[in-house]
Amino acid sequence: MTVATELARRIVGLRYEQIPAQAIQRAKIALLDTLGVALAGSREPCVASAERALGRGGASGPGPGAATGPTGGASTVLGRGWRAPPLEAAFVNGIAAHALDFDDVNESLLGHPSAPPLAALFAVGEQAGSSGRDLLAAYVVGFETGAKIGRAVNVEHYVKGWHPTSTLGVFGVAAACAKLLGLAEAETATALAIAASSASGIKANFGTMTKPLHVGLCARGGLLAALLAREGFTANPAAFEQEQGFFNVYNGKGTYAEGRIFERWANPLDLLEPGVAQKRHPCCGSTHSSVDAVLQLREQQGLRPEQVGRLEALISDKRILHVNRPDPKGGLDAKFSIQYCLARALLRGEIVLEDFEGEGYRDPETRRLMERIQVLPDPRFLGTAENPHSAVVSVTTGDGQVHRLQLDHAHGYDGQHPLPDAAVHAKFRDCAGRALPPGAVERLLDGMSDLERVADVRPLVATAGG
Amino acid sequence: MTVATELARRIVGLRYEQIPAQAIQRAKIALLDTLGVALAGSREPCVASAERALGRGGASGPGPGAATGPTGGASTVLGRGWRAPPLEAAFVNGIAAHALDFDDVNESLLGHPSAPPLAALFAVGEQAGSSGRDLLAAYVVGFETGAKIGRAVNVEHYVKGWHPTSTLGVFGVAAACAKLLGLAEAETATALAIAASSASGIKANFGTMTKPLHVGLCARGGLLAALLAREGFTANPAAFEQEQGFFNVYNGKGTYAEGRIFERWANPLDLLEPGVAQKRHPCCGSTHSSVDAVLQLREQQGLRPEQVGRLEALISDKRILHVNRPDPKGGLDAKFSIQYCLARALLRGEIVLEDFEGEGYRDPETRRLMERIQVLPDPRFLGTAENPHSAVVSVTTGDGQVHRLQLDHAHGYDGQHPLPDAAVHAKFRDCAGRALPPGAVERLLDGMSDLERVADVRPLVATAGG
Repeated sequence: MTVATELARRIVGLRYEQIPAQAIQRAKIALLDTLGVALAGSREPCVASAERALGRGGASGPGPGAATGPTGGASTVLGRGWRAPPLEAAFVNGIAAHALDFDDVNESLLGHPSAPPLAALFAVGEQAGSSGRDLLAAYVVGFETGAKIGRAVNVEHYVKGWHPTSTLGVFGVAAACAKLLGLAEAETATALAIAASSASGIKANFGTMTKPLHVGLCARGGLLAALLAREGFTANPAAFEQEQGFFNVYNGKGTYAEGRIFERWANPLDLLEPGVAQKRHPCCGSTHSSVDAVLQLREQQGLRPEQVGRLEALISDKRILHVNRPDPKGGLDAKFSIQYCLARALLRGEIVLEDFEGEGYRDPETRRLMERIQVLPDPRFLGTAENPHSAVVSVTTGDGQVHRLQLDHAHGYDGQHPLPDAAVHAKFRDCAGRALPPGAVERLLDGMSDLERVADVRPLVATAGG
Repeated sequence: MTVATELARRIVGLRYEQIPAQAIQRAKIALLDTLGVALAGSREPCVASAERALGRGGASGPGPGAATGPTGGASTVLGRGWRAPPLEAAFVNGIAAHALDFDDVNESLLGHPSAPPLAALFAVGEQAGSSGRDLLAAYVVGFETGAKIGRAVNVEHYVKGWHPTSTLGVFGVAAACAKLLGLAEAETATALAIAASSASGIKANFGTMTKPLHVGLCARGGLLAALLAREGFTANPAAFEQEQGFFNVYNGKGTYAEGRIFERWANPLDLLEPGVAQKRHPCCGSTHSSVDAVLQLREQQGLRPEQVGRLEALISDKRILHVNRPDPKGGLDAKFSIQYCLARALLRGEIVLEDFEGEGYRDPETRRLMERIQVLPDPRFLGTAENPHSAVVSVTTGDGQVHRLQLDHAHGYDGQHPLPDAAVHAKFRDCAGRALPPGAVERLLDGMSDLERVADVRPLVATAGG
């Protein structure tokens, strides 16, 4: 028995009927959320660049509307209006799904667990005409594979500079695709061993288009590993644990514990515990607790912008470093400006993608409110190693009253207390609506919410093509 | 200035006219040798598997003869009779070029320097209609980039378990493709930085089809990096040297010296010193010195098999471990059997690919001779850390005479004393003849030998399609 063969045994062995109903619910909402984010991401410049690099864009390839025909393929490119061979669709969809950094997070992986498998599974499931159930089972087992390997190699893997979303995500994708393609145990083990030679992505490229590229590479790489294994390719079943295998080469001796992969395998599923953190707002995660506190004061105590004399947010000093931006110079900068985000939240009652586009960051009404907003270090964490997501927001109104609210984490950031479905649906409509007409958005929302009863995912996935 | 920007400056700055004539000669012979090996490799099962994984093989895709039309592409798949988009051709050609492990080696890289750039450059050069000169300049600068980065990170990079052919080769490919595509300095630096997030390949997968897959992955990955950079993609120009950049993440602090990249940049070219080691025989490198000694005794002293009473080969004890195989059980096993290889060399005066196919390893005449062949540890190296390629061969004939020959390295294993052109040509004919008809083999040999005078490489590359 090797790590790869034991993983393969469990991947092949897991049946849809064994998955708890709660996990199916969480899987559906995670896939819906990620699909929306991918559709919004499909409008980002990095996706258009990648298309042109593939020879698909501009004058030399099919553009929107060229959805069929011999230059196309079996698989939908989300929100782009053309079809591609599955490997190519997985690649572009992966880039789109992470282009906005708005997709969900898992603490075992220390990365984004859903974007890579979604990108690959939609491409494969559409080609194969898979059922919604099979797609859900593949997603759950892929998630479990990536996350449990994460438990074995983190936090060291993450700290070393790898981007676990891709360097571990490639195993999740390989497992998910092997499952959906119905590979036998030996082939599944081979797919994982091939994936061990396909993992890449370093944090030095964070903050550039190459970060979402990592997701495209791992979605394609994991799918390719499964396809090669199906076609008789060979690899070393001991590719994880050997002297010059994945654990030693990527992590280094003494910095991992392979036993942790199987210790709590599916018991519970990592999708349920710790679960996924979903981003409600399309801005830096370190602003989210403060934004949620402001929204709650607005909704529950009727706080209005014109009442605000002074607004103070206390957050971890380690997070202040990158979100204290009283004068953002552009849309991307505004995503990291807690002053801007809190002002928009108080003015509009929500934060949406449009807030970070065009000249929105210069809006005079928002700027006037920002002048009354300050961010300060929370004294509870000064001089400690703690770096929680907690926020304490205090608003002093013109009449001297003080409204104070403390949140230990943002909504959706605790896997045990996920975002309400209504918030995920609102986010989906905002995101998907940027790439698709309203009718298609609603059909996707309905179909994804009912995924376990979809007999053939092809019409559903095709709807996401635009 | 960063490592990537300084590399880019030198890559863009190098002009064909500055390359010494001797380096152009070496480049042509290395490309010819690698092309032959790739053509022979195109017949290996791993290539057919990869084609099917891409959806190209079997009933679902074009087979031999489907060389044009909308399902094809601009680029020739070597020896396979179909065309593909450049990224796909680079991928399949990369696998083919390393499938037999018969391609050349460079000591700075501690890997195979020519297979990755050849696989990508043929694909790109054909699409662009490049000249032979431009292709040669791109190969030389790609070789230099990979090898000089190798000087900075080896031997630690190699010892850690990376497969430098791919993990460093990806930079060589990115540089070569950036050069051939005519990218500007900033784009070239971006291509290298993207490549830093694309490097993969671990030694645990040696001995399986995944080893040649590494070359396919890095040929495609390096080309993709160049294409993305051309299309406006972004990456961190400090992706090599930053805290969480390539050097620290792949090698680790204190195990590299980035200054060594530029210390002897193009002075001399790594292609000239240490140069490339070319494999003359399609069997394990540790048998080559002994085989050459036997061939020399046969040619120069007229030694015949029937005269041999006893044949002893003394080689490094570290190499005996994997080549002492008196009773090989199959063709692949026979490649590592020094007894088999020496017997074949003595019987036929050469070793060719066919010797390792079918039932050749059982040949009775060869088996009878093998019984008189022994391999023993060379006492000079016992108990030392030395592991040279040297061999001492002693043949005792029936009449009691002893013929003894000592070789310090195999022919072609010293970059300063490369294989004679005639030996490279013979190898090319044997290799290429496995995929192409004789006329095409000779046209390729002529064209590649005259590459600097080829105005448009398209007809030449198309000839290699089969």
